[in-house]
Amino acid sequence: MKIIILLYKGFTALDVVGPYEVLSRLPNAEVKFAAKEKGIIESEYASMKMIATHSLEEIESADILMIPGSTSAFLQVMKDAATLQHIQRIHATTNWTISVCTGAIILGAAGLLKKKAATTHWAVLGMLSNFEACPVTERYIQQGKIITAAGVSAGIDMALHLAGLIEGEAYANMVQLVTEYYPKPPVNIPDVAAVPKEVKAAALAFFKKEMGEMNTMQP
Amino acid sequence: MKIIILLYKGFTALDVVGPYEVLSRLPNAEVKFAAKEKGIIESEYASMKMIATHSLEEIESADILMIPGSTSAFLQVMKDAATLQHIQRIHATTNWTISVCTGAIILGAAGLLKKKAATTHWAVLGMLSNFEACPVTERYIQQGKIITAAGVSAGIDMALHLAGLIEGEAYANMVQLVTEYYPKPPVNIPDVAAVPKEVKAAALAFFKKEMGEMNTMQP
Repeated sequence: MKIIILLYKGFTALDVVGPYEVLSRLPNAEVKFAAKEKGIIESEYASMKMIATHSLEEIESADILMIPGSTSAFLQVMKDAATLQHIQRIHATTNWTISVCTGAIILGAAGLLKKKAATTHWAVLGMLSNFEACPVTERYIQQGKIITAAGVSAGIDMALHLAGLIEGEAYANMVQLVTEYYPKPPVNIPDVAAVPKEVKAAALAFFKKEMGEMNTMQP
Repeated sequence: MKIIILLYKGFTALDVVGPYEVLSRLPNAEVKFAAKEKGIIESEYASMKMIATHSLEEIESADILMIPGSTSAFLQVMKDAATLQHIQRIHATTNWTISVCTGAIILGAAGLLKKKAATTHWAVLGMLSNFEACPVTERYIQQGKIITAAGVSAGIDMALHLAGLIEGEAYANMVQLVTEYYPKPPVNIPDVAAVPKEVKAAALAFFKKEMGEMNTMQP
């Protein structure tokens, strides 16, 4: 099973590694990290660096293609015609094309979410409408062979769902146990809708500070 | 805030990246990845490679020292006197020393868990007794400045707890929202104790296949 994970400068590390940790445990998984140009790719806080062992050009096909998100770097990727063309080309060969967080915006920019329900990070959910996608608030949502996940950590839930689709629920449960994914965050808030307003305001202020400006962000 | 994350060949990627994604968002966080020798470090499925930008020798001190786990590579690290000495030396300077998964076994081997309650991956929980630690089944447990987390994904919960201790609960809640950590695994099993026996048997068989042999594994 050939799994291709896109890397690009400024990617969010957990967007990549959450699903990786699940999908790399599928039988015969062969995971490759591909970027526009191979080599060292810095994640969004620069201190974490991963290696893209392949250029996108070298990737002929994939069983699973995964597009991670980022706090702001996705805004560059969605304007990069060459990368979008590679995504379209590889997507044409996949059984599954999946995104985490603002990776969905990149899929949207590649024209792959037209008339599809999709999700992304809560702070930019509205952006999906720019690509004729229908934004929904879900942890992840499947439309045919495309699955989009919400922000950052939601990729883990999505990958377990996909593992279940591919290898059956028993296998997915086993991977969940292997990775001990029975989360108990210190504060038990069930979902984004239940987050107090002041926390949401603080998060938006955090993003603003991180990104300088991002006019498309939804309050 | 100087955060040092240990890398070693065969580390589990999510053990590293889960807490990284939380802790790198602390104010003035400066995260460094250190290994016995700097350079490219392969994670346990080899396809994911990260860069250790520093050797352990170069690290004089840390505010937070984090030791990730692995499926089997920790068995080598716990016998490596030089690495254990570096861990002891850096630990003497920390405000917090934390581990994820079998990283706790490495802390134990470094003599840092004596007479302390600690946790690790469920499959090797009993190993902690070898180091005079008291094994407990918790998502994470704090004893003074040491916090140990359970398997793999538990590092995220532990890091949010630590972010709360350092910057207050409101800040931790904000980081939880930024990383959208409101998990909804496809199958809602609340904890390891509630996992059906056949899933546990499948997970142990998976580990056995992965590792060849690991006599210390608890059934």
